[in-house]
Amino acid sequence: MFVNKMPRYEILSQDAMAVLDKGWRRLVSDIGVEFLSDRALDLFRAAGQTVEGNLVRFDPDFVLEQVAKAPREFDVQARNPANSVHLGGDHMAFGAVYGPPFVRDGEVRREATMDDFRRFTKLAQRFPQLDSAGGVVCEPNDTPLDSRHLDMVLALQTLTDKIYMGNVVSGGNARDTIAMTEILFGGREAIERTPATISLINCNSPLRWDDRMLDAQLEYSAANQAVVITPFLLMGAMSPVSVPATLVQQMAEALTGIALSQLIRPGSPVIFGSFLSNIDMQSGSPCFGTPESAIGLLCTGQIARRFGLPFRTGGGLTSSQTADAQSAYEAMMTMLPTFLAGTNWVMHAAGWLEGGLVASYEKFVIDIEILRMLQAEFTPLEIDEAALAFDAHAEVGHGGHFLGAAHTMERFRTCFYRPLVSSSANYERWLRNGGQDAAARAGEIARKQLEDYEQPPLDEAIRAELDEYVVRRRKELGD
Amino acid sequence: MFVNKMPRYEILSQDAMAVLDKGWRRLVSDIGVEFLSDRALDLFRAAGQTVEGNLVRFDPDFVLEQVAKAPREFDVQARNPANSVHLGGDHMAFGAVYGPPFVRDGEVRREATMDDFRRFTKLAQRFPQLDSAGGVVCEPNDTPLDSRHLDMVLALQTLTDKIYMGNVVSGGNARDTIAMTEILFGGREAIERTPATISLINCNSPLRWDDRMLDAQLEYSAANQAVVITPFLLMGAMSPVSVPATLVQQMAEALTGIALSQLIRPGSPVIFGSFLSNIDMQSGSPCFGTPESAIGLLCTGQIARRFGLPFRTGGGLTSSQTADAQSAYEAMMTMLPTFLAGTNWVMHAAGWLEGGLVASYEKFVIDIEILRMLQAEFTPLEIDEAALAFDAHAEVGHGGHFLGAAHTMERFRTCFYRPLVSSSANYERWLRNGGQDAAARAGEIARKQLEDYEQPPLDEAIRAELDEYVVRRRKELGD
Repeated sequence: MFVNKMPRYEILSQDAMAVLDKGWRRLVSDIGVEFLSDRALDLFRAAGQTVEGNLVRFDPDFVLEQVAKAPREFDVQARNPANSVHLGGDHMAFGAVYGPPFVRDGEVRREATMDDFRRFTKLAQRFPQLDSAGGVVCEPNDTPLDSRHLDMVLALQTLTDKIYMGNVVSGGNARDTIAMTEILFGGREAIERTPATISLINCNSPLRWDDRMLDAQLEYSAANQAVVITPFLLMGAMSPVSVPATLVQQMAEALTGIALSQLIRPGSPVIFGSFLSNIDMQSGSPCFGTPESAIGLLCTGQIARRFGLPFRTGGGLTSSQTADAQSAYEAMMTMLPTFLAGTNWVMHAAGWLEGGLVASYEKFVIDIEILRMLQAEFTPLEIDEAALAFDAHAEVGHGGHFLGAAHTMERFRTCFYRPLVSSSANYERWLRNGGQDAAARAGEIARKQLEDYEQPPLDEAIRAELDEYVVRRRKELGD
Repeated sequence: MFVNKMPRYEILSQDAMAVLDKGWRRLVSDIGVEFLSDRALDLFRAAGQTVEGNLVRFDPDFVLEQVAKAPREFDVQARNPANSVHLGGDHMAFGAVYGPPFVRDGEVRREATMDDFRRFTKLAQRFPQLDSAGGVVCEPNDTPLDSRHLDMVLALQTLTDKIYMGNVVSGGNARDTIAMTEILFGGREAIERTPATISLINCNSPLRWDDRMLDAQLEYSAANQAVVITPFLLMGAMSPVSVPATLVQQMAEALTGIALSQLIRPGSPVIFGSFLSNIDMQSGSPCFGTPESAIGLLCTGQIARRFGLPFRTGGGLTSSQTADAQSAYEAMMTMLPTFLAGTNWVMHAAGWLEGGLVASYEKFVIDIEILRMLQAEFTPLEIDEAALAFDAHAEVGHGGHFLGAAHTMERFRTCFYRPLVSSSANYERWLRNGGQDAAARAGEIARKQLEDYEQPPLDEAIRAELDEYVVRRRKELGD
């Protein structure tokens, strides 16, 4: 996996950090946070916090005591050990887009299906830049709603041998995910020892954790599975129209959610989550790849590091409707800061389009190109006497060229980044090759990668047990 | 103009810097640098450097003594004083693309004309993100070669009231540019007191300064006009296939070129230039927006600051043939590091396409959007108690929304970046609006901006004198 040894780009001064710190403390103690779960409320009450109805008013120092119990770094195991990931420190792990109800395939935009889900999952398996297909790569609208999570988890478990995300629609779905994960990894103890799923727990921002998400969190944290505690902040709607205010709200929500995980099971793995952008104040539409979201992202990294927590931000986010120039500059506007911040868990790293409503095959491949470029860019230079190639200068002299120099001949295969989608062909050659733009070329690459896909081997007995589980549970769920 | 108060992103360690420092010293003293100009050679010989034929071997400390004479920061005046720029420190100035022989307008790619030149110049005047139309915004192929520079300078002087770049095809062209600048600014003394042009002096890399460029440099530096001393480094062709080796070569070339300017006229304004990318080692085509070029850019900023020199890097560079996703992620891959590095003079900031062979109307507007976004992103947050909007939380409460909050209503017009090209419209609305991609929308914006263009006023006597100069010189040049 990718380890980012380049410097972090930090933009918050100590004074600014002190203001933010004071802010979240005031928010959790004065305004408080709602938890729509009796079990959560009981845990906070038992721990001495002030509970009135669903509202919890916190002692900020208590929150920090709980947060301090969370591991600074941890592993998530994949069924292929070579694909296990380490979350935290300089490590960066990348998962595909999560949640779109629609897909775009060239000019066609339509409802996503289970077939699309499988195809995106296969693409995620094909590209080494992705550590995971994620979870809900797209919404399989043609499968029954109540048992859909079984199909998705099974696809993630069998079509890839990478880590995967758990379903969070309800506590029951979380239990199914955990049960299937136990089957795949050889029992409860194996996955409690080393987590094998990451699950996304979104806040119903502002300052409210709802029952479905909390039910899932209670299951996952109890099983020592990783949870990404994520305030869902589109400034102007779910938070004030101010980046500092939104950062403070993000701290209040994330830290109290993380405190809950530590009450459920001290030491259980958590990720400080961030999903921070803004709405268009004219239309109310969410905007992505904005300057404000990039600033929020950089600040979030610095804040999470201060609390010693692995964190999640970023992805190839865009509001654009097609895999055009806008989709690319907005994706890069999010993804480059993601690398500057050294984000540990990057969701939506490939395939996101149209504000997350659409999973796009073309954009998926374009995002892979962006990831490949940034992984190359964020690999430190080795600067020593040998790298200066003095002999090459002695050989080539003044006004000559280095094309045939011995130094070049020894290195020409690996010396530079080699693109996946990008073309530097001259105009005539590009025309002869079909004159396609990057989106069209990316679509072709996606099709070719799917043709070349091979399913990773899986023990037949385990596969049979998983299938049996799905059949039984589907029947129980009435689908 | 834009002042970048965000931190610089520096990636070279002190050890790495020491290796690079040793490298350029060895290069200029052992291998030396060629200067194809007797006047330049005479100056170096008189200053005690070792000259054999066209080759100069330098005492590196002598080079540094000369470099130390150059101003750390300086002004370039525009005929509209509100558009004068300050070069150096945290200031960033932006000019349009320079040099393309072709243009792209939608699906049409053709030879550039003087009409295109004027249209791009007008676009540069329209957008406040650009401090200059640059110089050769595109090559006006339909005008006579020998007097073309007169038409270009006149267009830059009359269609914009921003700063402009000088012509560098020959010493004669430089003299014409200076003469016309004297007319516009009220005489030689006025432009010697504060420079009124910037000119691009490219190295014939590796390690050779050719006669045409040196002749232009001799004119401009003698007249105290700013020169951008720029090694032209496509790694694999003009420099070794190694970023560190290329940085060392860049230092050797730029610093010796700058030393020459200081011998011509001590204290004359110079800019440490960089044009650093790589070729595709399969095809030999130049590549732009690559990881290697981004790394080179970040290092260049750090190096130039170390010598106390304003510097030039960056732009919206891309190899792409159309204003597609590739053109946008490559442009952003260059432009975001340009802001991280705090580049003082950014050429090619709008309109560059197809490796610089094409000036594109669509890409011009897309690049303006990228500049606007980055200027917003690189404006520091104000983080104080008031920014935390505690009252808005008290008003909205848990699980509510901030759309109608008093805090929002007071700020909704200016709280977020407002895009020029980008769309966050929902799919149905986007379809109703024509379903255009970003390039098509950008093309429409370009057309609208040209319709709305108004020529900035100019004193009639000055205009007459400029016209007279052009007519006379055109006749003398035989066109």
